[in-house]
Amino acid sequence: MDLPVQCIEQELAQFREALEVELRTQVPLADNVIHYFLDRRGKQLRPILTLLTAKMVAGQVSPATIQGAVSVELLHNASLMHDDVIDKSDERRGASTINHVWDNRVAVLMGDFFFARCLMCSNRIGSPAILQALCDMTSLLTEGELEQISNARSHLLSEKAYFSVITGKTASLFSACLRIGALSVGATEQQVQQLGEVGIKIGQIFQIRDDIFDYFPSTASVGKPTGHDIMEGKVTLPLLYALLNGPADESARMRELIMVNRDLSAEEVETLVNYAKQMGGIEYAQARMKNIAFEAKQMLQNFPSNDSRAALMNLVDFFIDRNG
Amino acid sequence: MDLPVQCIEQELAQFREALEVELRTQVPLADNVIHYFLDRRGKQLRPILTLLTAKMVAGQVSPATIQGAVSVELLHNASLMHDDVIDKSDERRGASTINHVWDNRVAVLMGDFFFARCLMCSNRIGSPAILQALCDMTSLLTEGELEQISNARSHLLSEKAYFSVITGKTASLFSACLRIGALSVGATEQQVQQLGEVGIKIGQIFQIRDDIFDYFPSTASVGKPTGHDIMEGKVTLPLLYALLNGPADESARMRELIMVNRDLSAEEVETLVNYAKQMGGIEYAQARMKNIAFEAKQMLQNFPSNDSRAALMNLVDFFIDRNG
Repeated sequence: MDLPVQCIEQELAQFREALEVELRTQVPLADNVIHYFLDRRGKQLRPILTLLTAKMVAGQVSPATIQGAVSVELLHNASLMHDDVIDKSDERRGASTINHVWDNRVAVLMGDFFFARCLMCSNRIGSPAILQALCDMTSLLTEGELEQISNARSHLLSEKAYFSVITGKTASLFSACLRIGALSVGATEQQVQQLGEVGIKIGQIFQIRDDIFDYFPSTASVGKPTGHDIMEGKVTLPLLYALLNGPADESARMRELIMVNRDLSAEEVETLVNYAKQMGGIEYAQARMKNIAFEAKQMLQNFPSNDSRAALMNLVDFFIDRNG
Repeated sequence: MDLPVQCIEQELAQFREALEVELRTQVPLADNVIHYFLDRRGKQLRPILTLLTAKMVAGQVSPATIQGAVSVELLHNASLMHDDVIDKSDERRGASTINHVWDNRVAVLMGDFFFARCLMCSNRIGSPAILQALCDMTSLLTEGELEQISNARSHLLSEKAYFSVITGKTASLFSACLRIGALSVGATEQQVQQLGEVGIKIGQIFQIRDDIFDYFPSTASVGKPTGHDIMEGKVTLPLLYALLNGPADESARMRELIMVNRDLSAEEVETLVNYAKQMGGIEYAQARMKNIAFEAKQMLQNFPSNDSRAALMNLVDFFIDRNG
């Protein structure tokens, strides 16, 4: 399934050129890493959301939209570089990670460098509101990750806690993408706020789908080992549903498994994955995604009907059905 | 030797209170790390420079000065947290590092969190020039670190390259501290520019002194193992001077030692440290510091003569003579 982005092809080309310009440096080592990175770009979902939102609202993007799209892409990749160091990942998007090709030192510094360039780029837009959106989101992003670690350690099991984590660590960035797109073309305050909520919903869908991958054999396009989250004590929606809704005695036994303060064995992970599946956790998570998608699309109905709005609605469905 | 900061004691108290406020969070794990951090604060040299500069220029600080001081302190500590992960350091300021007490994951995320809060804080000042100073500097900081790795790998030995590295990785932040202090009290463009240069010089002195520590047995107050830089192929000023000015044949032999693309052994490091000392590298580096200090103090003569200016001048000397 291809991303539905035909209606912003020209804008995407502008974005990619601006991204390259923004990453120029005189330092040869940094330049090597940047070229390696630019040759292996991902799906660029976040800048796509910014571009589509702006074009939906105003019929066209502005220079601020392009700069905003560059900023969110830089920020996202900065946090991926740090994630790969943290998770000791060798591979991402089917290619070796920066920490693997170079080392942790270079990967942490390049992440910081991308952060710095994100700031320079967003500062140049000259819109305090856009900058504010980026700053708030960066803080929420790291707090979301830290909250997830906290919850795993304290064995906090509730749907509210789960949604708080995925909103912080994933949905806040998606929300910023839409808000920045809207702000970049002078949307009204109400529009910005509504699109921010749509972004939260899109991000939640994206993360729930991502979490579901963890319950199935890994594929090259995702590259995540099955049960990786569970192994670390991170209880995501399918297992959470099973633990909260399964038979009390069996759920209690399963909870005890997670309560140990160490990485779980492959067998223990399999037991928990199977329990989540038997109790209908996958179906529940899919139903939740569809529900959230319905709400997001309902909210988008308030905006001008055009190709970009259709593309945004298609993206919502794409996020539910994606295989990688 | 105590830091000469009596004349800004009240402002420092305001700064420390504002720093605590800026770091508030609802995430318990983040909060624990922050309290651990706040209890083990360092010398807070960078915010001190911001406060002294503002008070020197205007006779008093402004709310923007306090926010600016908080921003530079947050940024500095963000990069320290990342440095400790990169260097796998267990100890800093005589206490266990965050990566040691918690783990790399928490340390990288907390570094990002501090970055994020730095941005939120500086954005709230509402001064594009202050924000610009912070953004530019963050980029220079990471580029300086990456340049040093590049130079070590390509065995680039020149004083110009050395000064380019220390200016990027250390002096750019000191420069931003003074510029932000000046900007926060409405200094003229010329004053901001001059103080930026003074900051570069203070930062260079600070880093040269730091580099000299590497040639002597480590003490608890610095905590850096002797020859750590050299072991990694990083040639700092004393050794650089020896290699560029020692007898051609001996220098060539020493260069060969560094050319190997692996960490050096303790014996090899000792050989190089001794060579640097024999050739007068330490004295040369000290003379360079004194020279730069003289220039910095000359430039400070252009500013109002008051307690804060005297304290800044004393700080310059303090940086040359400091033992930790």
